[in-house]
Amino acid sequence: MLGKPRRLAILAEGSFTVLDGKTAVGVLRYRPEEVAAVIDSTRAGRSTEACVGLGGSIPVVDGVAAAAALGADSLLIGIAPQGGELPAAWRGAVREAIERGWDVLSGLHGFLADDPDLAARAAASGARLLDVRRPPTRRPVAGARAAQVDALVVLTVGSDCNVGKMTAALELTRELKTRGVRAAFVATGQTGIFVADHGVALDAVPSDFVAGITEELVIEAAREAEVVLVEGQGALRHPGYSGVTLSLLHGAAPAALVLCHPSARASMRAPRRAGRAAATGEPEPVTPIIPPLAELVREYEQAAAWVSPARVAGVALNTLGLDEAAARRAVADAARETGRPATDPVRFGAGPIAAALEQALAERRRHATAP
Amino acid sequence: MLGKPRRLAILAEGSFTVLDGKTAVGVLRYRPEEVAAVIDSTRAGRSTEACVGLGGSIPVVDGVAAAAALGADSLLIGIAPQGGELPAAWRGAVREAIERGWDVLSGLHGFLADDPDLAARAAASGARLLDVRRPPTRRPVAGARAAQVDALVVLTVGSDCNVGKMTAALELTRELKTRGVRAAFVATGQTGIFVADHGVALDAVPSDFVAGITEELVIEAAREAEVVLVEGQGALRHPGYSGVTLSLLHGAAPAALVLCHPSARASMRAPRRAGRAAATGEPEPVTPIIPPLAELVREYEQAAAWVSPARVAGVALNTLGLDEAAARRAVADAARETGRPATDPVRFGAGPIAAALEQALAERRRHATAP
Repeated sequence: MLGKPRRLAILAEGSFTVLDGKTAVGVLRYRPEEVAAVIDSTRAGRSTEACVGLGGSIPVVDGVAAAAALGADSLLIGIAPQGGELPAAWRGAVREAIERGWDVLSGLHGFLADDPDLAARAAASGARLLDVRRPPTRRPVAGARAAQVDALVVLTVGSDCNVGKMTAALELTRELKTRGVRAAFVATGQTGIFVADHGVALDAVPSDFVAGITEELVIEAAREAEVVLVEGQGALRHPGYSGVTLSLLHGAAPAALVLCHPSARASMRAPRRAGRAAATGEPEPVTPIIPPLAELVREYEQAAAWVSPARVAGVALNTLGLDEAAARRAVADAARETGRPATDPVRFGAGPIAAALEQALAERRRHATAP
Repeated sequence: MLGKPRRLAILAEGSFTVLDGKTAVGVLRYRPEEVAAVIDSTRAGRSTEACVGLGGSIPVVDGVAAAAALGADSLLIGIAPQGGELPAAWRGAVREAIERGWDVLSGLHGFLADDPDLAARAAASGARLLDVRRPPTRRPVAGARAAQVDALVVLTVGSDCNVGKMTAALELTRELKTRGVRAAFVATGQTGIFVADHGVALDAVPSDFVAGITEELVIEAAREAEVVLVEGQGALRHPGYSGVTLSLLHGAAPAALVLCHPSARASMRAPRRAGRAAATGEPEPVTPIIPPLAELVREYEQAAAWVSPARVAGVALNTLGLDEAAARRAVADAARETGRPATDPVRFGAGPIAAALEQALAERRRHATAP
């Protein structure tokens, strides 16, 4: 991962759950063979499978030393907190890993390599601090150029943050490859970058250039692929992140969208306050409701059409927490409500949406070669 | 300006026109008493009034030495090029200013203080390099908190970039103050910051925090003001900047919008390619058309409503290039097409829109105090 084969210790202290340990879960799902251990002293002694349903018997341990004993040689920061700073309680583990000469892989907004204390320790031990969220220095401005590539560009969009947009894109990439389609995944967030070893964390890019960087990534991926699957970010109705979503939608200029939604969620996860006390008498953040899926389909298609038309090709549900029968009902309901194929790509496979994308690709080619 | 009274030399070499010298024009319109000269050797010998219709007899000169002879003591970079780097041809003038000990005020994306050569020269001469686009280090995530302030929050939005959103907000602030309303201007771009001595250049903020920073600025301004006028950025249909626009719309959570449009423009100004040769065989940027104003009104109101409802309270036209009769016709047409009051706030005054905002403020108070 990121330069060489690794045996990772994933730091998820106090947070190794499906909802809070998003990065840890993504790496366990897609690159489990590189994980030696997960560090969470509050869950030590259990397996990763017992904690998050993934990774089989990979052990959860109480610290860096225990991970080292299991052969770990790199530390990966396994959470992506709002605000993006290294939690103070984690500094000790990061220092210990650096002093052992381990590279530290981080997707935090606060760059480890810019921390004088950590940088000095890394210089002394030969460890490298790999901040995957550090934005590129180029400053391209998007011009709807991605709308013109031959490949079918697909963007995953969502009803909220942390709903499975990366997972849906990765599952569709895998499924399309299985079907013999040259499919490429474009990572736009830190976990996706750890999984794909390539990409840009768009949320850290200066806002003027988010669409431009996305456009570059899509054009690059489209040189080799027939279908380009772009990992979405945020949500059009999210008060904090909607702009990132729209930059991505207009920069990638996709022809197809896949709408992602966790069945059990009726309202967005409330934004936490970053750096302010609640006692200031200032307004409190709201918790927006999530509208019906058919309404989201309309909104995303409208917003795309401001630059280039796109059609929602399918709905990817996350049915976590529902039993099998309820999950199948949720999938059937989503298909009926939206008139698009639906599935939980993790639980039931990405087949129905992949088939719709194959059909969209075939239609695209017919149009391209029509006399 | 920015810390002390100044006599500015505005650097606009080869670009001192209304369209290219946006920052120069903004400072000349709102703080002309601080401008000693404009530097543009291709137009030297003329007055600023002759070049851009503003500033009266302020002279255009051919270099830093000529500006110094007119009493200049600071250099202000007067353009905001796409990509945002200091043009190579301008380095000599910047160096010369620094060596004279002048502060340099810059709104470029490339920070002058991060340029080792310029920073070393500034350290030697005592000059300060004031990069107003440097983003704050705080990382707030927006939570629709600005929707809850008592003040009437007004955001200027547009059919394209560079259409007069800052100017409309400043003219409305001035007009409302004349009418006895406590109005505050929130600057969100480099020129607005030069004019207001306060604000954040949102286009340089990491995309995750643009809405959050906007929310902070609005809540801060609303502590003292009855009406908060927020300078808009970009356009919802601009392929490169739409995300900045949506972040601002959802972060400011305004109750009223003012739609800004240059009458003579039928399509957006084409994005220039930043850092790539046209000869690569890659797709070229498109030049999007601008839809009818009534359609833009609908789109902005829809996009606002995803987080908090807003109504377009008026249309601010820029009728530059039209004769008096044609300008009056354009204003009447815009009012008829949209059903909202319209004016060219620079040419005909901001009165009609200011009156609509006063009315919206009065209605807001009636609702707040209703039994």
